Amino acid sequence: MQDVAFEAGVSSATVSRVLAGLKAGTSEATALHVLQTARQLGYVVNSVAASLRKEKTYSVGLILADIANPFFAGLARGVEDILRPEGFSILLANTDNKVEEETRLLRLMMEKQVDAVIMSSSASTNDHIVSAMAHGLKVILVDSEIKDTAVDTIVVDNRQGAQNAIDYLIRQGHENIAIVTGSLQASFDQERLAGYYDAFSAQGLTVPEHLIFSSDSTYEGGRRAVKSLLQNNRDISAFFITNNLMTMGTITELVEQGFIIPDDFSLVGFDDMEWYSIFKPAITAIRQPIYQLGRIAAERLLKTLSADIPPSPERIVLNTELLLRNSVASRPVHPDTSPQEKK
Amino acid sequence: MQDVAFEAGVSSATVSRVLAGLKAGTSEATALHVLQTARQLGYVVNSVAASLRKEKTYSVGLILADIANPFFAGLARGVEDILRPEGFSILLANTDNKVEEETRLLRLMMEKQVDAVIMSSSASTNDHIVSAMAHGLKVILVDSEIKDTAVDTIVVDNRQGAQNAIDYLIRQGHENIAIVTGSLQASFDQERLAGYYDAFSAQGLTVPEHLIFSSDSTYEGGRRAVKSLLQNNRDISAFFITNNLMTMGTITELVEQGFIIPDDFSLVGFDDMEWYSIFKPAITAIRQPIYQLGRIAAERLLKTLSADIPPSPERIVLNTELLLRNSVASRPVHPDTSPQEKK
Repeated sequence: MQDVAFEAGVSSATVSRVLAGLKAGTSEATALHVLQTARQLGYVVNSVAASLRKEKTYSVGLILADIANPFFAGLARGVEDILRPEGFSILLANTDNKVEEETRLLRLMMEKQVDAVIMSSSASTNDHIVSAMAHGLKVILVDSEIKDTAVDTIVVDNRQGAQNAIDYLIRQGHENIAIVTGSLQASFDQERLAGYYDAFSAQGLTVPEHLIFSSDSTYEGGRRAVKSLLQNNRDISAFFITNNLMTMGTITELVEQGFIIPDDFSLVGFDDMEWYSIFKPAITAIRQPIYQLGRIAAERLLKTLSADIPPSPERIVLNTELLLRNSVASRPVHPDTSPQEKK
Repeated sequence: MQDVAFEAGVSSATVSRVLAGLKAGTSEATALHVLQTARQLGYVVNSVAASLRKEKTYSVGLILADIANPFFAGLARGVEDILRPEGFSILLANTDNKVEEETRLLRLMMEKQVDAVIMSSSASTNDHIVSAMAHGLKVILVDSEIKDTAVDTIVVDNRQGAQNAIDYLIRQGHENIAIVTGSLQASFDQERLAGYYDAFSAQGLTVPEHLIFSSDSTYEGGRRAVKSLLQNNRDISAFFITNNLMTMGTITELVEQGFIIPDDFSLVGFDDMEWYSIFKPAITAIRQPIYQLGRIAAERLLKTLSADIPPSPERIVLNTELLLRNSVASRPVHPDTSPQEKK
């Protein structure tokens, strides 16, 4: 700071005030001269000073539930492709699906003076998000929603997506369909379970509730699901798994136990992975518009940041697509429960 | 800020000075009182003020080459498992393998006042890193190294790992082994290519340089490699691919062109993925101690931050492991070039 003062021909106090972004007592011309000198000397102008001058730091926080999940990498790519060309830097943070981490990371992002946060929340309550917004942080929820919260929300139609998958399995003659899901705190897992219920109800079938298994949304969680479900049930004919990491765990556990997909068990996963199409058998899956989710969240953020008056929160819902491949086998249908073809 | 001034019974200028971390003109007791009042009112104390008080912000930057690559997710996990229990927050940033992004993100991390940066660099020169370190940023390189740079470096033995894989292929009777690699700017890709050369040289064989193909380290890059290599060569019997995304692309392109692995082509990938072991055929691969890389980098960072005198930079090298599965077939060996069994 003394070097800058010497070079610029001003007092250290002036340099300190300018670099701290304080406007009082210094002319605009002097401030500019100090900043230029500081930059020439390689002094890193801190973001607070920058934000006080420009009102924006051009940095955005992206809080994700699990960066080990390829889903979130695709989402981050969509966000970056929109925000980078506009001059924004993106700081990512990982909650590991822990709600207490969400609170901590929202606070961190405020301390780091980001202009806004795009967040995938696993929470079922909104206190931490409402509090962050009350402190002036702009928040956009993506891939998750929280009831009764006035916040921009970009999601896929998880409920309809899950219903389509179960409906397809039922039409292939399956009834004892196990659902392997993550913790049911998060909105997406609640919605996917609701879609599972909807599909059975729509066909007038009883929901096989003993085949609902919830665990961590991880590879290990998927393996545990298979072990537990097969140990306790002899009637399962198909698995519906609500996320890609658990799907990998489920497939691995079935293969290692010597079962053949789809001869022994049919299988549908929520979320499509690149290796599914070259796997033997190719895996039937629900494709989510992951990249689009990220892009739309980022576009919404730009709109919010550029508006003089903040726009009213919107809820944007994207459709999923069921990709029929080879991991589902037809079963002979019991005559009285034969469902009619729909759509 | 005016609310804080009113509550604390001081002027706005005092509040502004205290929150900006400026010590002159305000007693320690007043500063403390202002900070407590600000906190009670929910004012987020900015990280600059906090860092001036505590000298540490307890935040660490983690600059990764590609978060869409599962390798880096595993590395981030290792870093988080060490740093989180010590009270550190981790801010991730993604360079997309672009060297100009490395420079920009180092600058961003300095502006955001992190205590240190753990970085996976794709660069072949060190100007940006030396400059960041000269500005006081602590840097630890992981998975990459830059020649003649005095910086802590944690890497795997890429050269030996690649040599082991090629050596194994040669012993199975392969000679026309194509290597599919990312851009050869980054140290790890240079080292893996050097290992490819070493293996042929050690057996007294000519290196099939027409079978070296370099492209983006992506799924699409892998597909392009197969298209180009097969179009221009009729003699390839095996593929060695130096990263997991290109391996997925290579496998997909071979399968879609109707080839059978390993009957038509043998294949070894650098980096092990969970799905390799359940794929048909299971993929022979080089396992890297990814999680350990992250942990050791984080441990080194803690040591550096807690030392009064910075420790001398260290270079830590971890070994890889060749996992023999089913994607390599034996070929009849030409009598004069039959290599002796090694090790």
